[in-house]
Amino acid sequence: MSLTKGLFVTFEGGEGAGKSTQMRLLADSLRARGHDVLTTREPGGSTGAEAVRHVLLSGAAEAYGVRMEAILFAAARSDHVEQVIRPALERGTIVLCDRFMDSSRVYQGITGNLEQGFMETLERVAVNGVIPDRTIIFDLPAVIGLERARRRAADERPDRFEKEQLETHEKRREAFLDIAEADPERCSVVDATRPVDEIAAEVLSLVEALLPREDESHPSTAEVAS
Amino acid sequence: MSLTKGLFVTFEGGEGAGKSTQMRLLADSLRARGHDVLTTREPGGSTGAEAVRHVLLSGAAEAYGVRMEAILFAAARSDHVEQVIRPALERGTIVLCDRFMDSSRVYQGITGNLEQGFMETLERVAVNGVIPDRTIIFDLPAVIGLERARRRAADERPDRFEKEQLETHEKRREAFLDIAEADPERCSVVDATRPVDEIAAEVLSLVEALLPREDESHPSTAEVAS
Repeated sequence: MSLTKGLFVTFEGGEGAGKSTQMRLLADSLRARGHDVLTTREPGGSTGAEAVRHVLLSGAAEAYGVRMEAILFAAARSDHVEQVIRPALERGTIVLCDRFMDSSRVYQGITGNLEQGFMETLERVAVNGVIPDRTIIFDLPAVIGLERARRRAADERPDRFEKEQLETHEKRREAFLDIAEADPERCSVVDATRPVDEIAAEVLSLVEALLPREDESHPSTAEVAS
Repeated sequence: MSLTKGLFVTFEGGEGAGKSTQMRLLADSLRARGHDVLTTREPGGSTGAEAVRHVLLSGAAEAYGVRMEAILFAAARSDHVEQVIRPALERGTIVLCDRFMDSSRVYQGITGNLEQGFMETLERVAVNGVIPDRTIIFDLPAVIGLERARRRAADERPDRFEKEQLETHEKRREAFLDIAEADPERCSVVDATRPVDEIAAEVLSLVEALLPREDESHPSTAEVAS
């Protein structure tokens, strides 16, 4: 079953919130229902984006300005959008993406301390009209997300870093919630403290609400008739 | 002798127009007069810009979208501006740059066939307020520039490519002249068919006109007094 125009769903939130797991579970559920699904992630996701990622990661990062870093992220996103996401949507595929423009707003916006107008300009240039139909924000108290992320990374840093890390996580959480509040049409906040299967059921229902029902396979015809 | 705020001069034009030679001659003349001069060039000119250049040149370029390429050029320019050009200007240095934003307008604008609004946005993001005080456009009939460029590259391509190449060179020449016409305050067009020393004298006088004379070393004080 393919849609006349695909559906673009992004997964956002802090580390340790279960985004990747939930994206995989949603992809499985949608495929089991006969949908074409593409899963992808940022940064990366296309040839050009991976090349840019290499520049971002390959040392000397301190030598680069924060502005250049932000523009490089935009270049990577542009390639990912034009080479992968847009063509898939045009084929009628459901595209699920682990992190997208909201992660740039939160991570680079906060850490880079760049002007908002500059960040908005870059976002517009990078996404070039490909805005998510639905963005699911996985929300978690900073203390839990940090604990999960530290456990995963086997983080051995002394406790004196913990307060600083906690403040950073809390700032990001607030930033994601602010995005959701400012754009409720696009964003849904999901409580990520609950059991995995409960969250998965909510995520599936959020996305299914955007899919045409079987008996409405030609909604545009119906609209024309009314 | 250093200026209170440096001077930013860019050298633009098609291939074979003598930009690089003239930039070197100007730097020599200005240094002989006691000025601090920095010469640089694009693409490249800073650590980050060189890293980006590597991505642009390191194959698979066909796999990248033209939009990503244009954004990458902007990232390189941003790094060059923030890491090299702006700090030098703030030290009061005269910065001479072989190719800058007008080359992007002409080369990417024509070959990439990208929307003008997109190109303008990228330019604004990349230069971040660092606009040249003077842009010298070296103008040459396409047939001469092409001949010089071919001789330099020992180009052995058959004649059937010549007409196509000539048309491209002509388009670029027109594009540079259009820029000069639209922005006469910033741009000066120099006839590049003349002998090297004649051109050098004109270029020097164009730039000297922007420098304070010895007896006006504190123009701001004079302005306040008037």
